[in-house]
Amino acid sequence: MLRIEFFWPVMVAVREAAERARQASYRLASLPLETRNKAIEDIANALLERSSIIMEANSRDLRSAEEQRLSQALVKRLRYDRSKIDESVESIRSLMAQEDVVGKLLARTELDEGLVLDKVSCPIGVIGVVFESRPDALVQISCLCLRSGNAVLLKGGTEAKETNLALAEAIDAALSADERLKDAVQVLSTREQFRELLKHDDLIDLIIPRGSNELVRSIMESTRVPVLGHAAGICHTYVDKSADLDMAVDVCYDAKVQYPAVCNAMETLLVHRDIAYDFLPRMASRYKEAKVELRGDEETRRAIGALPATEEDWKEEYNDTVLSIKVVSSLDEAIEHVNRFSSHHTDAIITSDHEAAARFMDLVDSSSVMWNASTRFADGYRYGLGAEVGISTNKTHARGPVGLEGLVIYKYKLRGNGQTVAEYVGKGGRRFTHRKII
Amino acid sequence: MLRIEFFWPVMVAVREAAERARQASYRLASLPLETRNKAIEDIANALLERSSIIMEANSRDLRSAEEQRLSQALVKRLRYDRSKIDESVESIRSLMAQEDVVGKLLARTELDEGLVLDKVSCPIGVIGVVFESRPDALVQISCLCLRSGNAVLLKGGTEAKETNLALAEAIDAALSADERLKDAVQVLSTREQFRELLKHDDLIDLIIPRGSNELVRSIMESTRVPVLGHAAGICHTYVDKSADLDMAVDVCYDAKVQYPAVCNAMETLLVHRDIAYDFLPRMASRYKEAKVELRGDEETRRAIGALPATEEDWKEEYNDTVLSIKVVSSLDEAIEHVNRFSSHHTDAIITSDHEAAARFMDLVDSSSVMWNASTRFADGYRYGLGAEVGISTNKTHARGPVGLEGLVIYKYKLRGNGQTVAEYVGKGGRRFTHRKII
Repeated sequence: MLRIEFFWPVMVAVREAAERARQASYRLASLPLETRNKAIEDIANALLERSSIIMEANSRDLRSAEEQRLSQALVKRLRYDRSKIDESVESIRSLMAQEDVVGKLLARTELDEGLVLDKVSCPIGVIGVVFESRPDALVQISCLCLRSGNAVLLKGGTEAKETNLALAEAIDAALSADERLKDAVQVLSTREQFRELLKHDDLIDLIIPRGSNELVRSIMESTRVPVLGHAAGICHTYVDKSADLDMAVDVCYDAKVQYPAVCNAMETLLVHRDIAYDFLPRMASRYKEAKVELRGDEETRRAIGALPATEEDWKEEYNDTVLSIKVVSSLDEAIEHVNRFSSHHTDAIITSDHEAAARFMDLVDSSSVMWNASTRFADGYRYGLGAEVGISTNKTHARGPVGLEGLVIYKYKLRGNGQTVAEYVGKGGRRFTHRKII
Repeated sequence: MLRIEFFWPVMVAVREAAERARQASYRLASLPLETRNKAIEDIANALLERSSIIMEANSRDLRSAEEQRLSQALVKRLRYDRSKIDESVESIRSLMAQEDVVGKLLARTELDEGLVLDKVSCPIGVIGVVFESRPDALVQISCLCLRSGNAVLLKGGTEAKETNLALAEAIDAALSADERLKDAVQVLSTREQFRELLKHDDLIDLIIPRGSNELVRSIMESTRVPVLGHAAGICHTYVDKSADLDMAVDVCYDAKVQYPAVCNAMETLLVHRDIAYDFLPRMASRYKEAKVELRGDEETRRAIGALPATEEDWKEEYNDTVLSIKVVSSLDEAIEHVNRFSSHHTDAIITSDHEAAARFMDLVDSSSVMWNASTRFADGYRYGLGAEVGISTNKTHARGPVGLEGLVIYKYKLRGNGQTVAEYVGKGGRRFTHRKII
């Protein structure tokens, strides 16, 4: 690993780091699973061996955070203590047990006798990652990239500067045993360096930003490298006229209240007119217990007490105990509202009508669509993907909660015995068999 | 279909067209295969019914092309006669027989009893396509998009203006029978309109440029919408020291000479020193028959007569009967050269050494890697993918020759019976089963 020195011109330094990462990616592409597993196991051991150094570094970060009076939420995310180190180690070990995503034979076609085409999964190459505050992200993402054979350049939050440095040194020590892992994980130290990295779309294959919506949006707007992530989480739940109202109350309570600060929490509740006057008063009394601020359209405010919702409310991600509510007169009106205002992250329908559920799930254009379940389930761990790279609202490559599979692509490998295209041309030419083997 | 009128402000018109395409994409997402097949069959029939109108329009384009003294190659591509119409119809019918890429169940996981997660393929949404000269591309791409449930906005070459208009009218007539297909295919008439379209990354999910490297590169540089394609085809063949030299001569002749103007033709030949003085003279005499201009590094020029190659030659796509040649002293030097100068499109090794072949195919970072076969095989038709959307050198989403599968993504569908995340939290909480069903 090489942390870039401050006195070096940023432009040159970052370009060189990216070039080294590219070279490392070629070496990583051919490493067998055992070598990749050994690398992340060594990182786990280095974390344990260096835990007191890491915790001391973290204490220094926590102290400056308190001196700078950073928010309690941020300080909480920043903390990296004994139990957090153990969690990181456990997460690395569970990653080792995951199925290998590299070198999978995805398809095999015989083009002609002795001419066989394989489609084989392989690492993407070089990944750039930027994340805020949580130091465990540095360990987790480095290990996800190594496990999937990718080289990675990371930039962590300045609040966690000391912790990140100690973690980088631990990773560095772990990987230094094997020459092939040189430059596989590199840590950038300034925001300026990461901004510079975004320019090198010839060397960086994918950017993964993990942090606030502002961070993600600003990165999406300033690079030609593909960005995997989501800039907003405006999730809806639609309570259909044929919903089981007890279920609807429980699910909608969970979707808003269980953890309002996250991207998969519900921001807008849509309710069918036929059950609105029955459902909304019951729902409102549950929300009252949790002090949820309700903002409703005109019809909602006929059924319950609520602040007036404006057009702006449909576009807002509160990330807080605030909820906008709208009464709709049909399933299709609900679908239309969702497709117009959703951030295409996660949207749910509560209904006992199978056809309505199928229509909602087919027509709502979101990465996760749910039937009779809380939007809060949209998450890599809950989906059983193991560690999560992030949640993507992209329409290409990877969508929804993304695990190791989002860090690979494929290549075609054609094996022949001297075939030329000229043999297959014209009336007398050879014909392709195109026989699907796998 | 709606062609945008000239007197309408471009900005507004294009935004509105894109919004209509987005609405159409929601309708298309739920159409069963029969409806999508019927739509493209109707297009095939409309082409046949209107063939004389189409051919007359094409004659007008050909006449202006000749008046403007456009190149013979361009005029040839522009021609859309009876046999070309029949080819389009045949290609649509073979598309109808392809396996459906929409609605495939890719994975099913039981998260807990009664809580089942499906990963299901679905259309990407709205595709923007720009292509040059060939009018058959308009028909082919419209049908590929419809078949995979995507809405499409197309812009063809100005040389084929009249033909494109006649084809657009035929498609329009074919789709007008079914209200659900409204705005599924829209044709833009000016380059300015397509430039405008590139700005609307909130409405357009993918851009596919089919045309010159300059066109592709300029589009990649001017949009934040993901672009599927390749800006260059700098393909290599490496003749290893243990190659069968007769085979090497045949394959390298084919890779350069069979059709030099295309992206999968070889531009640089790498030769291992141990066989260079035997192989190169034989190869050069074959190339002489085809009047291939050879440009070699110093060592090449010791073995055969050739113009001197400079560093610039390694970076150039000649698209012509010109070839650069370099002698290397090892497999790894060849791999390094390829990874440095290849456009990551297609690169081949000729060898009888299995290990060398495996190392080359693992370490060369290109969308297609080949062993003892001509680079010219890298093509959707030859790979058995059916009609081809294009060849992609991207590292995410779709790579290599891309067929219908490159026009879909997936969504997660979670079905429950009222589950909340709160039930799964803490020590006494329910545990996920994460049982893989498919």
